[in-house]
Amino acid sequence: MTEAVAATRRSRITPEREAELYEAVLDLLREVGYDALTMDAVAARTRSSKATLYRQWGGKAELVAKAVRHNKQPGRAGDVDTGSLRGDLHALTLRADDCEMEQSSALMRGLAMAVHGNPDLLKAFREHLIEPEMAEFRRVLQRAVDRGEVRADNPAIRFVMHMMIGAFAARTMIDEQPPTQDFLLSYIDAVVLPAFGVPAS
Amino acid sequence: MTEAVAATRRSRITPEREAELYEAVLDLLREVGYDALTMDAVAARTRSSKATLYRQWGGKAELVAKAVRHNKQPGRAGDVDTGSLRGDLHALTLRADDCEMEQSSALMRGLAMAVHGNPDLLKAFREHLIEPEMAEFRRVLQRAVDRGEVRADNPAIRFVMHMMIGAFAARTMIDEQPPTQDFLLSYIDAVVLPAFGVPAS
Repeated sequence: MTEAVAATRRSRITPEREAELYEAVLDLLREVGYDALTMDAVAARTRSSKATLYRQWGGKAELVAKAVRHNKQPGRAGDVDTGSLRGDLHALTLRADDCEMEQSSALMRGLAMAVHGNPDLLKAFREHLIEPEMAEFRRVLQRAVDRGEVRADNPAIRFVMHMMIGAFAARTMIDEQPPTQDFLLSYIDAVVLPAFGVPAS
Repeated sequence: MTEAVAATRRSRITPEREAELYEAVLDLLREVGYDALTMDAVAARTRSSKATLYRQWGGKAELVAKAVRHNKQPGRAGDVDTGSLRGDLHALTLRADDCEMEQSSALMRGLAMAVHGNPDLLKAFREHLIEPEMAEFRRVLQRAVDRGEVRADNPAIRFVMHMMIGAFAARTMIDEQPPTQDFLLSYIDAVVLPAFGVPAS
């Protein structure tokens, strides 16, 4: 399909309507997961026709990947720089409220299986959910190293995302409740800062 | 249904055949996840009739929960007690080889979404996949506390499973490769032991 044809097809719905559709797809992903999400359910929830959805997006995989790309991370604007690693990690955590954390956690769960064997969806998942987080944690850690707070050769640096995303993802599995600010702040003080050799208080 | 009737129904297949069926169900869960797993696929893979499957198990949720309950954890026999926290954590990690770890990781992913909203499956998942691990880590940590290696009030004790299961689950998401022994041993030395205030070497 040429760019011009694609533009014509896209122009049939407004950006507001498109955003609304993506939000509905993300909600359904959180509720039932990728496999159980049907184009019928998307059509019903958004009061669209299935024909429109297929014409506009081609299919479920494309629609879901687009919706993930459209997903707004809470409070992404503005860099965090409080002057200490503890301050920065706490500030990053506090940018998402408990409701937003529960939503991210549900979205991660809804996509975890589907991204395997769907390279386009995996790419969207990584680029829009995982990598923005990784980039921020890397910046915060680099500053801690520059300040002399964390040693440049600390072996925990390589594992910062496994610590953070891991605790986030494992929380529901282990405690049958979603991750919260309180949970993550305690975890940062008890686990992450000691691993970096930084006192928690 | 009375016990006697249940016994009659169960007796139609041998324990070996039952084990074979559960293994096939677990394989399918790893490959496609719970939602995409169909009774047709189970019937085809195990050369059974769907009627037999439904008669024997009632439905997909029951069959999957039973299969999870039947799942053998690798090398579960025998307690680990090497005399140091590092030795014990390494020994627990080395009990599953890389292939078994990849299988556990895939199974966890295949079930992560489904356990929400399916209480019986959640119970099987927790009792047979999560809690046996938790019990072992608790024993190992208790001994470290008793030896005076870890302080009884160390705040990381509460998070041992979030650290371990979290890194295990996050590995594939972050690195696009399954958890391995090498990965987990490095993670234990870089993160877990420092969090407990124990030197890594």
